[in-house]
Amino acid sequence: MIKVSIIGTTGYVGAELLRILQQHPDVEPACLISRSHAGKRLIDLYPQFRDSKFSKCRLVDYEEADFSDSDIVFTALPHGVSQNIVAELYNKGLKVIDMSGDFRYNDIAVYEKWYQEKHHFPELNEKAVYGLVELNREKICKADIVANPGCYVTASLLGLIPLAKKDIIDLDNIIIDAKSGVSGAGKSLKTSNLFNEVHENMKAYSVASHRHTSEIESVLLDLSKRKSSDKLQVLFTPHLIPIKRGILATIYVDLKNNYGQEEIMKIYQEYYQGEPFVQILEDDLPEIKQVLGSNYCLIGLKYDQRNDKLIIITVLDNMVKGAAGQGVQNMNLIFGIKENTGLEARAVYP
Amino acid sequence: MIKVSIIGTTGYVGAELLRILQQHPDVEPACLISRSHAGKRLIDLYPQFRDSKFSKCRLVDYEEADFSDSDIVFTALPHGVSQNIVAELYNKGLKVIDMSGDFRYNDIAVYEKWYQEKHHFPELNEKAVYGLVELNREKICKADIVANPGCYVTASLLGLIPLAKKDIIDLDNIIIDAKSGVSGAGKSLKTSNLFNEVHENMKAYSVASHRHTSEIESVLLDLSKRKSSDKLQVLFTPHLIPIKRGILATIYVDLKNNYGQEEIMKIYQEYYQGEPFVQILEDDLPEIKQVLGSNYCLIGLKYDQRNDKLIIITVLDNMVKGAAGQGVQNMNLIFGIKENTGLEARAVYP
Amino acid sequence: MIKVSIIGTTGYVGAELLRILQQHPDVEPACLISRSHAGKRLIDLYPQFRDSKFSKCRLVDYEEADFSDSDIVFTALPHGVSQNIVAELYNKGLKVIDMSGDFRYNDIAVYEKWYQEKHHFPELNEKAVYGLVELNREKICKADIVANPGCYVTASLLGLIPLAKKDIIDLDNIIIDAKSGVSGAGKSLKTSNLFNEVHENMKAYSVASHRHTSEIESVLLDLSKRKSSDKLQVLFTPHLIPIKRGILATIYVDLKNNYGQEEIMKIYQEYYQGEPFVQILEDDLPEIKQVLGSNYCLIGLKYDQRNDKLIIITVLDNMVKGAAGQGVQNMNLIFGIKENTGLEARAVYP
Amino acid sequence: MIKVSIIGTTGYVGAELLRILQQHPDVEPACLISRSHAGKRLIDLYPQFRDSKFSKCRLVDYEEADFSDSDIVFTALPHGVSQNIVAELYNKGLKVIDMSGDFRYNDIAVYEKWYQEKHHFPELNEKAVYGLVELNREKICKADIVANPGCYVTASLLGLIPLAKKDIIDLDNIIIDAKSGVSGAGKSLKTSNLFNEVHENMKAYSVASHRHTSEIESVLLDLSKRKSSDKLQVLFTPHLIPIKRGILATIYVDLKNNYGQEEIMKIYQEYYQGEPFVQILEDDLPEIKQVLGSNYCLIGLKYDQRNDKLIIITVLDNMVKGAAGQGVQNMNLIFGIKENTGLEARAVYP
Repeated sequence: MIKVSIIGTTGYVGAELLRILQQHPDVEPACLISRSHAGKRLIDLYPQFRDSKFSKCRLVDYEEADFSDSDIVFTALPHGVSQNIVAELYNKGLKVIDMSGDFRYNDIAVYEKWYQEKHHFPELNEKAVYGLVELNREKICKADIVANPGCYVTASLLGLIPLAKKDIIDLDNIIIDAKSGVSGAGKSLKTSNLFNEVHENMKAYSVASHRHTSEIESVLLDLSKRKSSDKLQVLFTPHLIPIKRGILATIYVDLKNNYGQEEIMKIYQEYYQGEPFVQILEDDLPEIKQVLGSNYCLIGLKYDQRNDKLIIITVLDNMVKGAAGQGVQNMNLIFGIKENTGLEARAVYP
Repeated sequence: MIKVSIIGTTGYVGAELLRILQQHPDVEPACLISRSHAGKRLIDLYPQFRDSKFSKCRLVDYEEADFSDSDIVFTALPHGVSQNIVAELYNKGLKVIDMSGDFRYNDIAVYEKWYQEKHHFPELNEKAVYGLVELNREKICKADIVANPGCYVTASLLGLIPLAKKDIIDLDNIIIDAKSGVSGAGKSLKTSNLFNEVHENMKAYSVASHRHTSEIESVLLDLSKRKSSDKLQVLFTPHLIPIKRGILATIYVDLKNNYGQEEIMKIYQEYYQGEPFVQILEDDLPEIKQVLGSNYCLIGLKYDQRNDKLIIITVLDNMVKGAAGQGVQNMNLIFGIKENTGLEARAVYP
Repeated sequence: MIKVSIIGTTGYVGAELLRILQQHPDVEPACLISRSHAGKRLIDLYPQFRDSKFSKCRLVDYEEADFSDSDIVFTALPHGVSQNIVAELYNKGLKVIDMSGDFRYNDIAVYEKWYQEKHHFPELNEKAVYGLVELNREKICKADIVANPGCYVTASLLGLIPLAKKDIIDLDNIIIDAKSGVSGAGKSLKTSNLFNEVHENMKAYSVASHRHTSEIESVLLDLSKRKSSDKLQVLFTPHLIPIKRGILATIYVDLKNNYGQEEIMKIYQEYYQGEPFVQILEDDLPEIKQVLGSNYCLIGLKYDQRNDKLIIITVLDNMVKGAAGQGVQNMNLIFGIKENTGLEARAVYP
Repeated sequence: MIKVSIIGTTGYVGAELLRILQQHPDVEPACLISRSHAGKRLIDLYPQFRDSKFSKCRLVDYEEADFSDSDIVFTALPHGVSQNIVAELYNKGLKVIDMSGDFRYNDIAVYEKWYQEKHHFPELNEKAVYGLVELNREKICKADIVANPGCYVTASLLGLIPLAKKDIIDLDNIIIDAKSGVSGAGKSLKTSNLFNEVHENMKAYSVASHRHTSEIESVLLDLSKRKSSDKLQVLFTPHLIPIKRGILATIYVDLKNNYGQEEIMKIYQEYYQGEPFVQILEDDLPEIKQVLGSNYCLIGLKYDQRNDKLIIITVLDNMVKGAAGQGVQNMNLIFGIKENTGLEARAVYP
């Protein structure tokens, strides 16, 4: 059994980790850490975990947590805070899956610029593996620290990687118009997250400045033949829509050569052949309801002949494949378990 | 492996059965029947079942279905239609779990009155077992035909049975004010089910005339010491609220004797002791989000001293404990499998 | 022109007052007071008021507000705070429409018990008129202070008054099962008001203890022949449903005599004859979408013969007839303007 | 008083026309036509119109309608059907505001290609004026037939016209990523419009093939210096989001010259100077809640220096500025009334 601890248990990502791990046959809880609810029983906050493997758990403060019994720790913390905790856990010999942006960048300067945050652990950053399984599976298997990708980034990159790998895409003219449910904003108390402000509403936000832009660029640069000092610029526009879970990314790209719909389809099918959680729709475009509550990413493609543009549409559940599910997928790889263990659930529909 | 067929596969209850059975380790698909989509591949309708045990399934018409390979059939059909199909399946030696109202009544006259439908199979009706597990577990284990209870009825009875069994409730003054998500209305094309008609709206419907009234009365009468010819009248008011899944029932009852909050709590805890899917909240009242997507029913109690009334609040997911999940729970009993197999999932939150 | 000031402008009730007054031909803005946003331009918070009569308004702090130019002030403040402000305004010779609970009770002891708050202005309370227009129209016309009724209370009383006035209802066995949208909870930052906590959810809250219970009881007692020292107890259960605006109250009552559906209908139609904002549906039950954004209250009736209970269903928009709209209706009466001025808008549908 | 008839009264656009006209001081109803509900009283379908100027109206079939009393007719009909009716009305000497796509194109061949429908009235099409007020105000004042623009088209063009008029935009590289509420799909009974299919979901649809693409292109071509035989291609991607009303369009364009954020802002402010219903936000990006239920279009601008792209975000209510409201705005112009009569309402918030 893998003994799992979670730091930031009572936030949405933490709660989603619990939901997934509850069904994971090889996992046992170690410490559940929560600053805001330390001392409480988990089931008083989340009664859905009564009579579960977590039903006896009491939340503890980080300072009082004893990790001697833990095999791995999930850190679901704000960036900046996270790097310190990850370093402490690593120094204790623990494996860590970090949900923050702190260890996602090869180039620390890019991180520091976009996050306006000093990175204090450049050597640790070298060791961390970027946890996009469909890109880095082998490295993840041997990782001590996994930097779990951003939700928007996962939706965007899974749509772009097959083209980027083949070098048949104009990397300087990519537009990603992404729409996300509200759980991505977390449980923090902001007026803009209130039901009355979100429902029957939609808005764009952080236009031309969202941090995930740099994470997408960073991975694409890495995949390209350019030098790391070169620049590569993606236009990424996030929108908030009134659903709890789910991201739909509409990606507009120019292809270098002349490809028709079928050839493009083939490239995607080949690249994702055998992937347990990425599926290419042949005839339809995906909808969020097809992935709600599941770890799947569905991809649809439409080549617009009139405009000579390829439109790629990806959907995933930001709480699962965009966060906790991908984290568990990474954990499974690290411990050599079947990759989809605990993640077999299909979309909750309707 | 249990070979399962479904009639009415592409409706909401059928799709929910697939979602649950997909995670059930002891189930294999036999026939998936759909009139409206006969001939299609399941995954063209529901891409979420790609790479699953159902991914190769093609939908067939009832007339063309071959049940020789089936161990059990779930019928998710309109009442009236269902009784004929159930009879045919039974005569073929198949076990059946029927989602309709056709076999839920001891007294066929009550069925015929409330459903305005002739019952053609009174002998079969005698054989059918009412599939409310928490009431009829032992009988269900030996059943050939299980009449899966109505969604509202399950939410109502689970809140009332502990009191009715103890005979400490005034059975002639029960008010059930129930609120349901829209999936209970099924996938049928009615203006009143359109997004634009339901969203940001709420309404009461079938006031003082909803069929589930009679099903609740029928079971309560059976539990009472009254004769079956006696009358017992419940006031049941259903409301439609703009959520997809979930029922919350607010039940107002008078107790015969003087009981305080604690004594009542104890009665419920004792009655549901050991039940895998019914949980009593000690200090809080339940919310729908605590059961969304799961087979659990949560119950909260509030004794109103000022008015000398007990207010019972129950929540469940009408698609799971109110339909497909309870159906699988029944199936597990019939085949002697651990009752919660395939049903361990906890609420999808947020 | 009536010069109107608002205290608590940027909360939901304040914003709704602006929306309604914007269309009111006889109103001009005086002071718009907001503690949290003092100094800002209104249109920077609410761009929908650009190019309106409010477009030049800047928000000011209460302490800096100059009311010398105001004819009337709407106070949209928390109870307890409100009484002090109302007293100050009254002493300045201003008319006040108070949205809080502070001046809604004849019997201050009842207020103090349910609000756990000392009332410092018993004499002022004597002067205040309870602003339920359909009950107190004549008194309101001459009022200096109007206590605008609670939203749930308006929905409940409009459903009960015709029976209470006729003394044909059992006042000791009234159950009000009410469902409200989230705007009633205001703009305050609580986890329970977050989109992720409310959407696809429903819950009961403050069961057997909500303050509006006492306000309903207080008015019904007043209408009855009982002495004010007598008790009268209503069972009121509020629920939160995932819509922004709207209340639906399902009211269960016993009638003293034998009345059929038609006689009851007639009583309601007679009582509300000529009322501009209360309408009785003859054949249908009302839905929230029929009043969304409007000042109307729709009432439907269903006599349940089997149970000998009358079920009354009322709907209104808690922001309009339940708050700001009723406030403007009161203002119109005070200034002798046509009662529906500024309030003619019908439901926004779909 | 203007006597107004509506054909297609009971659909969503028809109902919205009623809501707006109800508050219009210069309008009286003539005929309300509905095929599906002919013979019924309007208030039996829509009780919100009780005690209104429409409260006595009975719905009639088109064949039985007497237009002799009408000054103007709104046709809210499917394309194809509409052209025949419009022609009949025109021949009777009536003014018509047509909500369909039938008279929106200068070049009938473009209409016939995109709508797969023969146009039988090319001469009438010459006479019809495209009813985008901010573009064609003067022509509309003298029009007999106004072709009311498409909802997506209005949102897109209001964002593009200031640039197109100045000829400073690359017309061959425009991407419009638009998101719409469900009311745009009308009241038709399709599975994809059911609450259970739409709620907590999002999807793209008609990708690279939506008809509104051609309408946008058609107007932009007209504004350009190109010949009408030239081509001009816009990439337009519509998405369905789970709200009832509202469109948000995210528009990506390349500018021909070097403009900074301020210069672009100035261009928009100058172009829309004095427009009653278009507003430019200086510092923020608009949200749908700021226009819900109102006839306003809000525009925000963000110049992305890194990518040298301008991102234009427009929001409007598809039922008002995108349909009925714009229709009434057109009517006002035709009859020489103040343009915003009946349209002064601001956003319903929250």
